[in-house]
Amino acid sequence: MIAIDWGTSSFRAYRLARDGSIVQTRAAPMGIMQVEDGRFAQALQSRIGDWLAAGETRVLMSGMIGSRQGWKEAPYVSTPAGADAIAAGMVSVAMETGAAAWIAPGVCTRDAAGVPDVMRGEETQILGVLESLPVADAWICLPGTHSKWVYVRERCIERFTTFMTGEVFAVLKAHSILGRMMDDVAVDLDAFDAGLDAGAGDGLLHRLFGVRARALFGELPAGHSGAYLSGLLIGSELASLPQELDHACLLGSSELTRLYRHALERRGVRVQSLDQHAAAAGLHILDQTLEHMSP
Amino acid sequence: MIAIDWGTSSFRAYRLARDGSIVQTRAAPMGIMQVEDGRFAQALQSRIGDWLAAGETRVLMSGMIGSRQGWKEAPYVSTPAGADAIAAGMVSVAMETGAAAWIAPGVCTRDAAGVPDVMRGEETQILGVLESLPVADAWICLPGTHSKWVYVRERCIERFTTFMTGEVFAVLKAHSILGRMMDDVAVDLDAFDAGLDAGAGDGLLHRLFGVRARALFGELPAGHSGAYLSGLLIGSELASLPQELDHACLLGSSELTRLYRHALERRGVRVQSLDQHAAAAGLHILDQTLEHMSP
Repeated sequence: MIAIDWGTSSFRAYRLARDGSIVQTRAAPMGIMQVEDGRFAQALQSRIGDWLAAGETRVLMSGMIGSRQGWKEAPYVSTPAGADAIAAGMVSVAMETGAAAWIAPGVCTRDAAGVPDVMRGEETQILGVLESLPVADAWICLPGTHSKWVYVRERCIERFTTFMTGEVFAVLKAHSILGRMMDDVAVDLDAFDAGLDAGAGDGLLHRLFGVRARALFGELPAGHSGAYLSGLLIGSELASLPQELDHACLLGSSELTRLYRHALERRGVRVQSLDQHAAAAGLHILDQTLEHMSP
Repeated sequence: MIAIDWGTSSFRAYRLARDGSIVQTRAAPMGIMQVEDGRFAQALQSRIGDWLAAGETRVLMSGMIGSRQGWKEAPYVSTPAGADAIAAGMVSVAMETGAAAWIAPGVCTRDAAGVPDVMRGEETQILGVLESLPVADAWICLPGTHSKWVYVRERCIERFTTFMTGEVFAVLKAHSILGRMMDDVAVDLDAFDAGLDAGAGDGLLHRLFGVRARALFGELPAGHSGAYLSGLLIGSELASLPQELDHACLLGSSELTRLYRHALERRGVRVQSLDQHAAAAGLHILDQTLEHMSP
């Protein structure tokens, strides 16, 4: 089968053997925003036409390709959601080659205040790492532009919380007065730790101004402001987690993931890193689930 | 005397009578960033040369003109700071006309965590409204790009807290995924109130994502997202105030000030609006203080 992780700005294809092992991978900066006039079928053909010609007949996709802006909308399924519920929410799309093609739905939940939260793509990655979890119930963190904390229980996504941490960091650095002082070449861990401590307190909008005030007073060298701001925001995010959290799984392999690991371990949380080809593994599980569901 | 409120992007001059009443005012988009090569004396002459020629001999200035990027740096004085301490921190600059010219210093403080906070310009406005305060100790709020909450006691700025509320709103609206959904023509008060309630809870970085998720689910019309985000941020700011706060003074006359009044009154806080020509009144008080201090 072919597994496609198709996001807003990137495209990644995996050719998988029957047992789920990865035979071949391809990546391209061909996110759904780069595909013109809804020509997704053609875009897909241009990237993996040779795999299809070689006899692959099943294509499963996940990510923003299933959003309103993508190929075909695959409506969100509600938590708790496991492989069965997610597979049942898949929508099929037509391929000229006659291959069977499906798009995975996203997952939605509501927080304690009744405000909705959504993921699209991450649910498939979560399915892909369920086998690797050390315990039946676990917190999985996916750092990124919109970081997600997902609570998994009995092979289901039970609930989750999204934080705009990465995007807030990026826009403040690029467009606010705080960014003017930043010329960080590398993340200074002491400054990052100081930010973590400050961010754990309340009043984030005040703490943010502290980045500027500390720099004005020479208490934060220009090269450390970015690390401090990063710590402030990640510290604020982690302050929302349950106090009793003592184990977490991290999905990702970026520099940002390394910072999350450091922040969590500093708080006394044991951290397990999970596979970075999780989307391919998750789509393989969905493929098997679909096969069992078919008449 | 002549009072000048000279900020980053604006210039406002007041000609005052001996009793402090305003005789004439002038405003121009001539902030310190618009003055080239440090030619502040010439810029000032171009705006109020006729007042000086008519016999005015004292010019007092406040605002970013006293910052490192301004005419001459007037170092911050520490809290508690009243008229005497602020007047003592004024620095003089040379005018070709022979008029005596001074720049007021900013004020700095430290929060409970030891992180510094600063104001520059607001301290003069605070001095200008001290006479109008209904009680000896009061909380004064100055909404804006960087909103400030100032606690005044015995005619002194006792302590204060800056929040990046306005700037965070602006950068998120202009540069984040949240802004894509915003086409607010006017502030919808129901959406603003819903944001206030959501912002009062913890986890601001999560609540921000709720703006997007609620819009995705049709729970927030496109025309209401901006009002909801504004409420979310102001609600988060107000959550940092003392629970027992039952009276506050608002300094300003903008649309934003109106929203702060609404948010405070909704929380049961009595609100008093203060004079908007506070900077002129404050500089007049500093002028009198300087005269008494001179040998």
